[in-house]
Amino acid sequence: MIAEILATGDEIRSGTLVDSNSAHIAQKLEETGVPVVRHHSVGDDIPVMGSVLREIGLRADICVVTGGLGPTSDDLTAEAAADAAGVSLIQSPEALEMVESFFRTFHRPITASNIKQSYLPDGSTCLPNPIGTAPGFMMKLGRCLFFFLPGVPVEMRRMLSESVLPRIETLIGGVLQVCRVKTLTTFGLTESLTGEKLKGFSTVFPEIQLGFRAKFPEIQVKFYVRGTDAEKVEMLIREANDWVAEKLGHKLISADGQSMEAVVGRLLSQQQSTIAVAESCTGGLIANWLTNVAGSSDYFLYSGVVYANQAKVSLLGVSQDTLNRHGAVHEATAGEMALRVRQITGATYGLSTSGIAGPGGGTDEKPVGTVCIGLATPNDVRAYRFHYRFRSREMNKQMFAMMALDMLRLELLGIRPASLS
Amino acid sequence: MIAEILATGDEIRSGTLVDSNSAHIAQKLEETGVPVVRHHSVGDDIPVMGSVLREIGLRADICVVTGGLGPTSDDLTAEAAADAAGVSLIQSPEALEMVESFFRTFHRPITASNIKQSYLPDGSTCLPNPIGTAPGFMMKLGRCLFFFLPGVPVEMRRMLSESVLPRIETLIGGVLQVCRVKTLTTFGLTESLTGEKLKGFSTVFPEIQLGFRAKFPEIQVKFYVRGTDAEKVEMLIREANDWVAEKLGHKLISADGQSMEAVVGRLLSQQQSTIAVAESCTGGLIANWLTNVAGSSDYFLYSGVVYANQAKVSLLGVSQDTLNRHGAVHEATAGEMALRVRQITGATYGLSTSGIAGPGGGTDEKPVGTVCIGLATPNDVRAYRFHYRFRSREMNKQMFAMMALDMLRLELLGIRPASLS
Repeated sequence: MIAEILATGDEIRSGTLVDSNSAHIAQKLEETGVPVVRHHSVGDDIPVMGSVLREIGLRADICVVTGGLGPTSDDLTAEAAADAAGVSLIQSPEALEMVESFFRTFHRPITASNIKQSYLPDGSTCLPNPIGTAPGFMMKLGRCLFFFLPGVPVEMRRMLSESVLPRIETLIGGVLQVCRVKTLTTFGLTESLTGEKLKGFSTVFPEIQLGFRAKFPEIQVKFYVRGTDAEKVEMLIREANDWVAEKLGHKLISADGQSMEAVVGRLLSQQQSTIAVAESCTGGLIANWLTNVAGSSDYFLYSGVVYANQAKVSLLGVSQDTLNRHGAVHEATAGEMALRVRQITGATYGLSTSGIAGPGGGTDEKPVGTVCIGLATPNDVRAYRFHYRFRSREMNKQMFAMMALDMLRLELLGIRPASLS
Repeated sequence: MIAEILATGDEIRSGTLVDSNSAHIAQKLEETGVPVVRHHSVGDDIPVMGSVLREIGLRADICVVTGGLGPTSDDLTAEAAADAAGVSLIQSPEALEMVESFFRTFHRPITASNIKQSYLPDGSTCLPNPIGTAPGFMMKLGRCLFFFLPGVPVEMRRMLSESVLPRIETLIGGVLQVCRVKTLTTFGLTESLTGEKLKGFSTVFPEIQLGFRAKFPEIQVKFYVRGTDAEKVEMLIREANDWVAEKLGHKLISADGQSMEAVVGRLLSQQQSTIAVAESCTGGLIANWLTNVAGSSDYFLYSGVVYANQAKVSLLGVSQDTLNRHGAVHEATAGEMALRVRQITGATYGLSTSGIAGPGGGTDEKPVGTVCIGLATPNDVRAYRFHYRFRSREMNKQMFAMMALDMLRLELLGIRPASLS
């Protein structure tokens, strides 16, 4: 049994609106055990809609269609479906009752254009919409059972889970498949190097489809598994997870989709440690990421975004002498920033960044993309220099901030910089 | 001339990833004057990709395909295209040179899987990728000219505008229509209230299609205009711009797509003023936004992300008495934070936030979504309290930060809070 998805509407066709409905429907169908093979989008155009409906009718077993069931003149889906089936639109008593009761409940006057919504293709079955005025419907076209739902995401989601998925589960009966997607988050290798490290995966785990996704600056590794035995699928995923973890080592940040800042936060909490940050080139991004994690006030004390050199001296206490001798972008300055922010806050760890995010400010010796990261721990102060070549200021900031958090993560895991590579 | 769009990849097919590339491509094609009729998505599956490519080849004049050009084992698009055309993959000298020069520039080792990326369908033309390792290509299949681009949005967008759209413009030659999209950025009204304020627009400007887009927390107002006389189109846009500006007043942030932080930065530069920030609930987000603007070191001096109360007292100099009497989330505290950060940095303006982003930390008196914003100017200190009802911590942080920057923007424009509404 295979499924396709069709999103209708000029806004999606012309790109004014990003279609997020189809991704939601695909996820739900896959979870139910029905593989989705194709998605389509077309505009509010009866002949085009009709031809794509007929095409899908030749190919798929199930299709979920969204959009075009509203009361206005550009809502043409019921008409297109009737056209494709060679039937006419007739008033559905259930649909009329639904629309009328919606307006009764909300004490709103019913209009002629709302009455229009009760006309469905002859032979179709009405699907109730508990939270909106547009009833859905289902009907067979060719070999395929079509479910027509409104495009408003909250209505579509409700009707999908209440009216569509239970019917599909009944249809597929005993042969229900388990479909699992697992996401592992990595940082520190390019996508191609990540792929190289995992060479041989498909020989060891032929049942698992492997995917990669660059979610800058992280790379996600994904497992797609399908099977009839849920326990076996879970075991397979655990084994594959261990295999990948061994290959990637400390480049694997999390095996449950957690972001870098969530992982760092969890480690700080577990170790009852606190963090304070001194940010120059990252401009508050490290603090922003850390404080996006709920509960971060337990371990995040302070970040001084000391953008101006004057602020580094007067507010953080970096010595003017260090700045004069080495400049702001230097291991010595970064180390002193980390040390000072740790001292003035009493945090367990002090973390700092100083670098050149661009587009201006680069020199031959310290080109755009250079960053120095300082880390002060209860035992020592260390500083590192890295160099990146992204053209965008925002990408440089993100990479600098991620690298700084990774230094802290490795420290919290007890991995020493000697083994960084 | 009609266009279709194809997005490839198991993540999109299975709904793990929402496809935003297709909307971007549709918008750009429509702006160029080529109507988009259909979008498709399929997974990383050579026979399925091949059959959809052949179908499109029978129907469309132009098709833009994204995804599957990377170095890993799930990148199968070039193979599927060669298959559909009945040709083999051969190494493209231009593509090889591009990949090699990318790795030379970045001093990174080239791998066998990157070399794979230089194999393109025989007879295709390589399209350069200036910011990534995956070359694109174009080739004819059936009656349709296909452009194959990588799925990474930043690479796809760059190649679309540099390699694809100019070629399409040449193809459509003399019949070129002027298609202009103008974006106005607003803040402070909901999408429906913005719509209400602009009621009557289409009567005054029937030639312009009006669009709204929520780009949280900003709302964008868009004009879509098509015509053959470029000068006339520009004049029309200017008139419509003035009409909208009058209706929206100071809710209109910019008429050229500039973000809030860029507008604030421009005003600070023009007035040779500087800014320092004390952030509690926004956790560095204001600093991060401000420092995303190139050249912000001219006016941005410092942000103290004083998350812990201890940091507010010891690092910023907020009086313990104020905190004891009013708590952290209060106009008195926010005002003192703004005043103190202005004093310790010598900035022209001090801006502060203190609030409850959630999900925890709310009380009956100060529920989640409460924020106090302080603004210290050369003449006075003011503080405001706002309340929002977003469920997400990140949305609250964004709204708080945007509201604080808006307070500063209005001050820089000489608009007094009495007229805030």
